[in-house]
Amino acid sequence: MHHRPWQDTSLPADTRAAELLSVMTLEEKLAQLVGLWPGSDAGQDDDADVAPMQSQVNSGSPDLSALLPHGLGQLTRPFGTAPVDPAEKARALAEDQRKIVAANRFALPALVHEECLTGFAAWRAAIFPTPLAWGASFHPELIEEAARLIGDSMRAVGVHQGLSPVLDVTRDPRWGRTEETIGEDPYLVATVGTAYVKGLESAGIVSTLKHFAGHASSRGARNHAPVSMGPRELADVVLPPFEMALREGGARSVMSAYHDIDGVPTSGDPVLLTQLLREDWGFTGTVVSDYFSVSFLELTHRVAGSPAEAAALALAAGVDVELPAQRCYGTPLFKAVQSGEVAEELVDRAVLRVLRQKAELGLLDPDWSPEPPALVDGGTVDLDPPAMREVARRIAEESVVLLANEGGALPLAPRGRIAVAGPLADDVAPLLGCYTFPRHVGVRHPELPVGVAIRTPLDALRDELPDADIDLVTRPADAADADVCVMVAADRSGLFGRGTSGEGCDATDLELPDEQGALLDELLATGVPVVLVLLTGRPYALGRWADRLAACVQAFFPGEEGGGAVAGVLSGRINPSGRLPVGVPRHTGAQPWTYLAPPLGQLGDASNIDPGALYPFGHGLSYTEFTWSDARADADAVDTDGETTVTVTVTNTGERAGTEVVQLYLHDPVARTARPVDRLVGYARVDLAPGASADVGFAFHAELAGYSLGNGRHLVEPGALELRFAASSRDPRHSVPLTLTGPERHVGHERRLRCPATVRMNGG
Amino acid sequence: MHHRPWQDTSLPADTRAAELLSVMTLEEKLAQLVGLWPGSDAGQDDDADVAPMQSQVNSGSPDLSALLPHGLGQLTRPFGTAPVDPAEKARALAEDQRKIVAANRFALPALVHEECLTGFAAWRAAIFPTPLAWGASFHPELIEEAARLIGDSMRAVGVHQGLSPVLDVTRDPRWGRTEETIGEDPYLVATVGTAYVKGLESAGIVSTLKHFAGHASSRGARNHAPVSMGPRELADVVLPPFEMALREGGARSVMSAYHDIDGVPTSGDPVLLTQLLREDWGFTGTVVSDYFSVSFLELTHRVAGSPAEAAALALAAGVDVELPAQRCYGTPLFKAVQSGEVAEELVDRAVLRVLRQKAELGLLDPDWSPEPPALVDGGTVDLDPPAMREVARRIAEESVVLLANEGGALPLAPRGRIAVAGPLADDVAPLLGCYTFPRHVGVRHPELPVGVAIRTPLDALRDELPDADIDLVTRPADAADADVCVMVAADRSGLFGRGTSGEGCDATDLELPDEQGALLDELLATGVPVVLVLLTGRPYALGRWADRLAACVQAFFPGEEGGGAVAGVLSGRINPSGRLPVGVPRHTGAQPWTYLAPPLGQLGDASNIDPGALYPFGHGLSYTEFTWSDARADADAVDTDGETTVTVTVTNTGERAGTEVVQLYLHDPVARTARPVDRLVGYARVDLAPGASADVGFAFHAELAGYSLGNGRHLVEPGALELRFAASSRDPRHSVPLTLTGPERHVGHERRLRCPATVRMNGG
Repeated sequence: MHHRPWQDTSLPADTRAAELLSVMTLEEKLAQLVGLWPGSDAGQDDDADVAPMQSQVNSGSPDLSALLPHGLGQLTRPFGTAPVDPAEKARALAEDQRKIVAANRFALPALVHEECLTGFAAWRAAIFPTPLAWGASFHPELIEEAARLIGDSMRAVGVHQGLSPVLDVTRDPRWGRTEETIGEDPYLVATVGTAYVKGLESAGIVSTLKHFAGHASSRGARNHAPVSMGPRELADVVLPPFEMALREGGARSVMSAYHDIDGVPTSGDPVLLTQLLREDWGFTGTVVSDYFSVSFLELTHRVAGSPAEAAALALAAGVDVELPAQRCYGTPLFKAVQSGEVAEELVDRAVLRVLRQKAELGLLDPDWSPEPPALVDGGTVDLDPPAMREVARRIAEESVVLLANEGGALPLAPRGRIAVAGPLADDVAPLLGCYTFPRHVGVRHPELPVGVAIRTPLDALRDELPDADIDLVTRPADAADADVCVMVAADRSGLFGRGTSGEGCDATDLELPDEQGALLDELLATGVPVVLVLLTGRPYALGRWADRLAACVQAFFPGEEGGGAVAGVLSGRINPSGRLPVGVPRHTGAQPWTYLAPPLGQLGDASNIDPGALYPFGHGLSYTEFTWSDARADADAVDTDGETTVTVTVTNTGERAGTEVVQLYLHDPVARTARPVDRLVGYARVDLAPGASADVGFAFHAELAGYSLGNGRHLVEPGALELRFAASSRDPRHSVPLTLTGPERHVGHERRLRCPATVRMNGG
Repeated sequence: MHHRPWQDTSLPADTRAAELLSVMTLEEKLAQLVGLWPGSDAGQDDDADVAPMQSQVNSGSPDLSALLPHGLGQLTRPFGTAPVDPAEKARALAEDQRKIVAANRFALPALVHEECLTGFAAWRAAIFPTPLAWGASFHPELIEEAARLIGDSMRAVGVHQGLSPVLDVTRDPRWGRTEETIGEDPYLVATVGTAYVKGLESAGIVSTLKHFAGHASSRGARNHAPVSMGPRELADVVLPPFEMALREGGARSVMSAYHDIDGVPTSGDPVLLTQLLREDWGFTGTVVSDYFSVSFLELTHRVAGSPAEAAALALAAGVDVELPAQRCYGTPLFKAVQSGEVAEELVDRAVLRVLRQKAELGLLDPDWSPEPPALVDGGTVDLDPPAMREVARRIAEESVVLLANEGGALPLAPRGRIAVAGPLADDVAPLLGCYTFPRHVGVRHPELPVGVAIRTPLDALRDELPDADIDLVTRPADAADADVCVMVAADRSGLFGRGTSGEGCDATDLELPDEQGALLDELLATGVPVVLVLLTGRPYALGRWADRLAACVQAFFPGEEGGGAVAGVLSGRINPSGRLPVGVPRHTGAQPWTYLAPPLGQLGDASNIDPGALYPFGHGLSYTEFTWSDARADADAVDTDGETTVTVTVTNTGERAGTEVVQLYLHDPVARTARPVDRLVGYARVDLAPGASADVGFAFHAELAGYSLGNGRHLVEPGALELRFAASSRDPRHSVPLTLTGPERHVGHERRLRCPATVRMNGG
């Protein structure tokens, strides 16, 4: 059989893409730059009557063959819009692909993308903990394993691209999407997020980094709101996770965002999307728009007066693909190119990137088959197999943070009388983040079954403590004569106002949601010892209660195995090892604030308001005890291009096995700009049997002390530094001085981002 | 008598300064760059033992002759630190000046500075309304008159420089210093602030613009906190008031600020203090540090490792004078210059500016006398004369804003039973801002008499309505059978946590302070019609109550005549004419937000939180009614360098005389960056008798449509605009289209800033 050059699998993807491009009409090119969202009525082409390509598609069964004579770039969320059995969905997707292939003269399939923030966002797919919990685990390898399993399951049903991870660094916990972030520290977000990317990409799924860039810094923490930010904060706080995920993780796609920074919409910003991403960082994958963010240039930013102008701006800036469906890149862009207003070279640039990716994914191969791998030879689809549950369970267990246990109320006695309170204590909602299928789609359909086996916190606790007398109390007074009360304070995650956390569910303050603070007051008033369990998408202000709680546990949204993880920590079966990826504030207001504040942002005489955390970033207790000793450095001075290893010894001096998270913070006493008092530069999880000890070493390179000069370069300057081994950002145990010597250096995006840790067990 | 050249009044000030500089030692030069704060124990030289110049001065009666052999640049706040009769203070100041003159070989006096934000901040000086009330008046001419009287009184007692006005544009009302600002709109702040500058400068007082620049944008609205901001927001929102006050107002001093922007401390930023201020704007006056802000470079920003490094940074950046006293510019800078670390040219540059200003002020003249003008020939000092009271009264009256009167509860019936509630209803505190003497200094001394005649809100209302039955109620139930209840919801302004508003008295949220919201709830629960009177330093969230109030009045801190102004509005003697300079929010959270938000910052589907104002910027009711008609433009298109006049006719169709504030907003439908939906570009107060009408015209130049390109230039682009005549930022009455034609223009700091208004009465 004779293949055309672009079908020749022996040629490089670049060449194949160029060959294909060279024989495409303008309509065919543009068709590769847009998505189609069957089953959704949102965001299709406004100008259907004159559309040279597909027209409106409003229902689930479009006649794709007739609609798509020129091909299709992306199929949008075929699994994510309705509660249909995934095998059935996979078959329908294959059928759609057959029609798409049959309809265009090149027999090109669409690239299929889906959400996968807490697992594949399909009905009956495994539901992993939310990214804040990934951050709390401080365990990138485990997150990588989860992502690989997630990617495998997506690939098996015909998906090519996943719109994850969120690499936004949390700046203000009022933002509803805080739950989707990994935390407030760029290094933690970078390392954990990069692990996720590695996992997904190793499964052959295109990972999509979002939201590029600065989306978490919206004014007033309102979703989509404008961002006030200068270039140094962008470079030092916002960009590092993207840099690491591209360089080390190999992510092949980046999503442009909704917001503007200082008036410039990110989805129309060539400095961000082309100069930085392509020219400086050398990115060769695709830039896809956030859903409707190209239209936002016209409709909300008003930097374009028409869909055509929006398309021209976005395309020139570097947005290659309009998602979720064509509105600007369809008819309007076609006309603009035809009339000469937009250079076809810009279209070609984007199409080349898309086709190259399709070539890499095998979508240009002559033997490409729409048959999803899972269904080949009569196979079945199980998106929630035991192997995924196992990893979901491990992440959940490792991400529960014991905030306080001053009364020693935990572990719970196995036979006591336990009152469980909280409006959602016997509900699965507080285990699920807003990008799980049941909360993302199902929240509009309360009658919808969750789709996976999952226990409520109450049920899990009953299973965990079969000999205890456990009652759900609805009136606080009924808790009074229990031995202990476990109050579950919980968010309901959802979308656009249909939740207390989640995308578009922002908070005006950090009071416990749904007036659960009042319930907590009433429970405490009864005199019963109260263990507060927080299943929330953001940290809430606990200053009013901290001194009166018998214990406090923060678990974010721990996923389908989360009930057991929390119950296991409460019972003592699991020794808690999570650490806070975001500080838990004292007060409800005074936001934004994170631990990265410079001295001016910390408490001082200048304001009556202490914005600092009650439980700081990195904090978390264990049921055992650790001693830290013998901090040392291989050198007390290195060149500004040099590296040294700093080491501390950690010993489990308690009576049960446990995990310490050794954190390394950099304190730079004097710098050229105002710098954080402390910032995380390295960490390691260390599992230790009772009596065991380990040497934890960090290979600290001088470039890790660099910071932005505001011009794309980072300054590494000679001078004194202090490296602090700490159990949290506010709990330094030991420190070693380190002097950087030699000339100051200005380094670019090739600089070191990672501080590798080594854990060596002692004795044995 | 033979004079040295620098004493020769026939020579230009420049020449005289240079001549004097040329004969000064380094010690003498540096002495001109620092302040001395007798009576304060704060901020003197740390290194007294080796100081080549003055040593520590901790008490009120330093031996100045011995201390100051090299002279002294500034005497800091001689009137502002203790409640001493101003005539006595003036005599003591003259005595200090004699000692200072006697101690140095050039017989140079110190330049004396004082605060004058709400009037001269001396004991027994007239207390004017707070700047938010100036903004509410929309009456620059009146503010200019006030400033001239304030300046006259300061000059009369030997003061040369006033540390006012605050030109920060409010961005987040949680900030305690919101009360010190003129409002949330740059044009309002610019025009009213410039009027204040003109008044002060016309009295011969050096006006000091502060806090340069961006101080109101601190993160979380905490005092001094870091600022996240890009160059466009700085240029479009923050800088215009400074530009206008320098260019039109002729301010001769600028104060550098405490905070950093994107990591760069403003007091160490040469781009801001030299490139922008000197090179672009051509400023020739002095830059003084905010109190201790040079030290901040070392102590809180940590961009300097020592006082000497802080001095070097600040001096090089363009801070000429260290206030309030020497810490970095004293011994440390002396040593740094001696050792060659700091170039003496930088010292000379600053000293020249200081000496030139002293020459202009007559302080270098051979016949300069320390005798304060007020005391010449047995004169007396009265800092609160009837003429000042009269202007203070007029501002107070014109700044009371009637927010709502839906129940028609106002004006109050002259003979009814009126319950007055509120913990501060019978206190003068809520009439006074934090820079009045009684709140600034006296708040530490509650026993201190206020110093000026002033009535509490309750007393003023009793005087206003002698035939009414007015009781102060402390229990809400006691209000139940009154005809109406006037609840005074009030801030206590103070410093650094000693108040609910004021410098260092920031709010975590916008709930009414001191739990007055609970009182309001209880009053409403009794069923009595409640008129809420707000005497506050910031807007508070009123969404919970708005529908249930009989009427609502916002008066900020209206000063020594404020009680009568509020009572006069309540009685109907005064027809309210104030308009909100800041929006009154609906919710307590979701801050920061101001009306200048682009579409993305307004309510949308993307967030559950509506940050918009309940009562928007520019809102205010009257007891009469106005109709707006016949909006027209002299042209429907002008060149990008052109101007046209747009006019609207306003008629008083009610039955009593009143004042309408005609506001002109620019709506730019499509721009190159995200722009505010509406922004104020002009306004005019129009006094109209019943039945009278006026044509209100605005000379709108195309440059007023310009906006920052982020590079120091502003873009004036061709295209469609809409000019909206409006009664508030959310109440457009008529609009006229205007098309800009011709080439796009990039204009610099010479661009038009003002849109002159003309009010022409009709008929008559």
